[in-house]
Amino acid sequence: MIVEMKTGASQEEVDGVVEKARSLELGVQLNLGTDKVVVALLGSNTGQIPTDIFAVLPGVESVTRIMKPYKLASREFRPRDTRFSVGGVKVGGERVVVIAGPCAVESEKQLMEAAEAVKKAGATVLRGGAFKPRTSPFSFQGLQKKGLELLARAREQFGMPVVTEVVNPQDVELVASYADMLQVGSRNMQNFALLTNAGKSRRPVVLKRGFSCTITEWLLAADYLLAGGNNEVILCERGIRTFEDSVRFSLDISAIPVLKKNSHLPVFVDPSHAAGHYSLVPAIAKAAVAAGADGLLIEVHPNPKEALVDGLQSLTLENFSALMEELRPIAAAVGRSI
Amino acid sequence: MIVEMKTGASQEEVDGVVEKARSLELGVQLNLGTDKVVVALLGSNTGQIPTDIFAVLPGVESVTRIMKPYKLASREFRPRDTRFSVGGVKVGGERVVVIAGPCAVESEKQLMEAAEAVKKAGATVLRGGAFKPRTSPFSFQGLQKKGLELLARAREQFGMPVVTEVVNPQDVELVASYADMLQVGSRNMQNFALLTNAGKSRRPVVLKRGFSCTITEWLLAADYLLAGGNNEVILCERGIRTFEDSVRFSLDISAIPVLKKNSHLPVFVDPSHAAGHYSLVPAIAKAAVAAGADGLLIEVHPNPKEALVDGLQSLTLENFSALMEELRPIAAAVGRSI
Amino acid sequence: MIVEMKTGASQEEVDGVVEKARSLELGVQLNLGTDKVVVALLGSNTGQIPTDIFAVLPGVESVTRIMKPYKLASREFRPRDTRFSVGGVKVGGERVVVIAGPCAVESEKQLMEAAEAVKKAGATVLRGGAFKPRTSPFSFQGLQKKGLELLARAREQFGMPVVTEVVNPQDVELVASYADMLQVGSRNMQNFALLTNAGKSRRPVVLKRGFSCTITEWLLAADYLLAGGNNEVILCERGIRTFEDSVRFSLDISAIPVLKKNSHLPVFVDPSHAAGHYSLVPAIAKAAVAAGADGLLIEVHPNPKEALVDGLQSLTLENFSALMEELRPIAAAVGRSI
Amino acid sequence: MIVEMKTGASQEEVDGVVEKARSLELGVQLNLGTDKVVVALLGSNTGQIPTDIFAVLPGVESVTRIMKPYKLASREFRPRDTRFSVGGVKVGGERVVVIAGPCAVESEKQLMEAAEAVKKAGATVLRGGAFKPRTSPFSFQGLQKKGLELLARAREQFGMPVVTEVVNPQDVELVASYADMLQVGSRNMQNFALLTNAGKSRRPVVLKRGFSCTITEWLLAADYLLAGGNNEVILCERGIRTFEDSVRFSLDISAIPVLKKNSHLPVFVDPSHAAGHYSLVPAIAKAAVAAGADGLLIEVHPNPKEALVDGLQSLTLENFSALMEELRPIAAAVGRSI
Repeated sequence: MIVEMKTGASQEEVDGVVEKARSLELGVQLNLGTDKVVVALLGSNTGQIPTDIFAVLPGVESVTRIMKPYKLASREFRPRDTRFSVGGVKVGGERVVVIAGPCAVESEKQLMEAAEAVKKAGATVLRGGAFKPRTSPFSFQGLQKKGLELLARAREQFGMPVVTEVVNPQDVELVASYADMLQVGSRNMQNFALLTNAGKSRRPVVLKRGFSCTITEWLLAADYLLAGGNNEVILCERGIRTFEDSVRFSLDISAIPVLKKNSHLPVFVDPSHAAGHYSLVPAIAKAAVAAGADGLLIEVHPNPKEALVDGLQSLTLENFSALMEELRPIAAAVGRSI
Repeated sequence: MIVEMKTGASQEEVDGVVEKARSLELGVQLNLGTDKVVVALLGSNTGQIPTDIFAVLPGVESVTRIMKPYKLASREFRPRDTRFSVGGVKVGGERVVVIAGPCAVESEKQLMEAAEAVKKAGATVLRGGAFKPRTSPFSFQGLQKKGLELLARAREQFGMPVVTEVVNPQDVELVASYADMLQVGSRNMQNFALLTNAGKSRRPVVLKRGFSCTITEWLLAADYLLAGGNNEVILCERGIRTFEDSVRFSLDISAIPVLKKNSHLPVFVDPSHAAGHYSLVPAIAKAAVAAGADGLLIEVHPNPKEALVDGLQSLTLENFSALMEELRPIAAAVGRSI
Repeated sequence: MIVEMKTGASQEEVDGVVEKARSLELGVQLNLGTDKVVVALLGSNTGQIPTDIFAVLPGVESVTRIMKPYKLASREFRPRDTRFSVGGVKVGGERVVVIAGPCAVESEKQLMEAAEAVKKAGATVLRGGAFKPRTSPFSFQGLQKKGLELLARAREQFGMPVVTEVVNPQDVELVASYADMLQVGSRNMQNFALLTNAGKSRRPVVLKRGFSCTITEWLLAADYLLAGGNNEVILCERGIRTFEDSVRFSLDISAIPVLKKNSHLPVFVDPSHAAGHYSLVPAIAKAAVAAGADGLLIEVHPNPKEALVDGLQSLTLENFSALMEELRPIAAAVGRSI
Repeated sequence: MIVEMKTGASQEEVDGVVEKARSLELGVQLNLGTDKVVVALLGSNTGQIPTDIFAVLPGVESVTRIMKPYKLASREFRPRDTRFSVGGVKVGGERVVVIAGPCAVESEKQLMEAAEAVKKAGATVLRGGAFKPRTSPFSFQGLQKKGLELLARAREQFGMPVVTEVVNPQDVELVASYADMLQVGSRNMQNFALLTNAGKSRRPVVLKRGFSCTITEWLLAADYLLAGGNNEVILCERGIRTFEDSVRFSLDISAIPVLKKNSHLPVFVDPSHAAGHYSLVPAIAKAAVAAGADGLLIEVHPNPKEALVDGLQSLTLENFSALMEELRPIAAAVGRSI
């Protein structure tokens, strides 16, 4: 951590910084510049010390953190890629994992049709929302427990693991008893009560990026899961909020190489929520695989025209199947399969 | 709702839109433009119908909502300003309400010192965090129940109502049993499980704006509280995430007149979280009062240098007292008192 | 264009809108909703009429444009993809065009080394900045005319067309006399004086996206070039400004399919300026080709450690050559060559 | 400047950084942390040295600038507030300067009516656009030279200095020969050719903030003007681009105290372009004065319904006059007059 003193800071003010640092058992090196004093604070946990502690001291101009604030999710903490399996499907390996299915579980017929078709096209994990976080209280909120039961039935019938979202800390156990993997949604990425409970569940977790959270904040959220003892975490980029209004969210394609550099966790991409329109999904999905994503999360609906939620961004069964065909040579071009 | 058909859309495609609209009991008017067909859908609840339902139909180019999607929070729903009282303090009236106190309750001594000083300076509600949502799992998470007890004690001693944050849906009852008003924090603005429970509590709620949520989304979140039967909601602007990096968040000063135009709910401003630095707080607080805010939420700490959370943005007792003196003539200049 | 009247707008106010529309020779259709009157304005040029003209009238709540405001750049105006050649290199066809070279022309030796290597690796157009727009007046501003001469010499020697940036309207002729293609940089995308002059030059133009401009504004800027009679315009996405701070700019990968849908102009991607760090360039470049980009613009420097400008985002000659090998199978996977 | 080496960087890599620093005549201090080496580079001009020079060296993890990159505009360079006069009107003093007038000069009648009314209401400088930067080439581009002549005539008649925008570097002399002050618009804030010429003119310059530029970039743009020898520069905040869509731009109210802290230049606010709607202008204008703005730039039109440009954000003469009355007590409340 680097503390820059104001021009003309007094010796007493510099001493104040040094003392505070020593009280925290940090090493201290003074840099007497031509114009101002700069104090370097050294120690293995400076990433976890709030910069405010020093910024608030008299005579301090600015404080800059050098160490990253996240820890367990960092590649420095664990240099090798994390790999694990979700209901028998390997995550983080050579094969790009495609999770597909409807945004919301609406009925047995809808879910089974979707499951059958996505499996046939090559998806290996089934998705479907039972608890739906909706911006309006007047919108369809999901089938809830009934939706979980249908997901379990689909797993039986098609032999695919299922992933579904959990939105309330007290539902973690219930959802974990039905699903092979939990999903924490974008709006809940900083719902720390939910993260704490999900971190204690025995299920892998897909942690979607908060749509306005930096990569650093995202990895801090992953630290909540990892700190709870849950090492099986997938980071899923799903678009960030920007000024551009031709899409619902702007997919941050650079997040893939940035995460690969800074974290050991597998990285997935959800092109559907970013695009907001089915016609844009294929280009984004192809870009994600080319950029090194370990998996995709794609919304597919047997009849988007009748979908209760997000029909516009859902692929039809035919379009999904066609996209899978297009993705295979791209995966091969980057040394992977799909 | 306005449905724009693609250039060259077929009669069958236009009919598809019309049929769908009629199935939802909407009125329909066709506009046969020189270049394209535009279909106007009419009805009193078009604000609550997802645009996707039409956007996904064949031949549709775009769908534009005319009615606002929020309902109970809108000024159209309730034309007169909402006013209520929090532990005897009137909110939404002529007097600008100042809520002040430490970011986190750290100890009895700290809280009592802060309470005494902010009361003396003219604040009428005491704030203090017992449950703290922190970006890192390794940071101080608040005194929790012990913090609530201290807040209750401060209320007794100084005769001020207290407000504190609730972060877990299952804690709503507990927090409501101690506090006069609940706070839903920025990162939980779209935590719909929390909103649903808070909407059923018998306490007024301060709903902070999600730092990347639009005003429309904010009013939809307020709808969750109002739909639960809780009519006593304060909207608190606390800065939004932008590209500017000289502050923690950019305070959206325009939100005040925009909310006053579109909603009946009282509007508060938290200059502390926006600024991120105590030296910027006074200018923002003064701007907020001049722009018509009904109240302020200000972080004050007896000793910011020793604060466990957000010390850098906290005013000292002296600085808070000085700010209150500066605010009075501005309040008077806009026909209010403080 | 759709004009929504306020609830309770008077007949006189509605008549005001209708009259104004008729004075502009627009067709008018009234939609008498249950709650409010909505007026649809019809005509082939409603995209070019400012919405303010109606929004400012008494009784008007909002005005929504249905037609897109850009015209010449739209796919509706010209349904087929625009293709042209730059110094013999075909743009917009089956082959993905790679433009490569140093950010700034620094010396003959540097430029020639870069030119030789990028040509050998498969690039077909050489880039190099002679006039450099720099955020600080104390930074290196480019070799200017001398830089143009070196570019012309490189073209001679290696038989590659060259592209370089023009920053001052009065330099358009000068730059056009040396370069095969002009570049309008991100910070000048809305420099309308420059666009007007570039639109009159006889050279193709690469129009980089303003880093905070929407796709709509970008296509309006392209309209300036096209309106001047210059039909040979390349749109180059180079990253947009967001809150994410791990990269210089967030590359908007969705811009590729959105532009392909709405415009006939070829779409290029500059991964170097978006990433800001050479290690992130390959992943973004691969994503761009997979998503359908018609070309890439990549910064390559024989010795990034000695670069005067943007060394950190420049690939070495070896890294560029390796990237070209990685791009080939991806181009093939989407039915193209490189 | 602080150079953080990668964990495990070799001695040779550290030496490379040290050598590079010495070659630039910078002082060097090594900080041998427990986990990594951090190198502090010291010197009076480290703010002006690109961080890339070090970031690109092998073994370097990150480079952090401590010194600010702008120089002449900084308060460190000139500690006292800059004050000057524009055609006899003092800028930067006790009195808040109100610049008012139409967005575009449309006709003699329009300009004279506006000038007379704004003068009567208390404005001391007249604004009016002769050269208009428009997003579409098909929009009204201003009366140009004829507009300048009308402005000069208004100055004669009403004895008010006039300010108008210049958009083309080669027009600087022409515009300076008519106007008392030049305006560089938001879209041209990083048009360095224009800044260079404006910096050499003998006229004060209003430098509007680029709508997506940081305060640091803004002060660097001011450095271009100051480096040209022009010390009379006004910084004018006019709203930044964010995700919020209820206003055209989000006025960055915090920019006022941030600029006051970091720069000696006077700070103005343009509420009209930020709001985009006349009804929001008063609240923002009042907030700006309360927060310490030295002046306002307000669009006023005798007949907004007939305005050729930006009618929706223009105040009528009556509304402007009423706003001036409301501003006076606020100015008094912060120890100023208007």
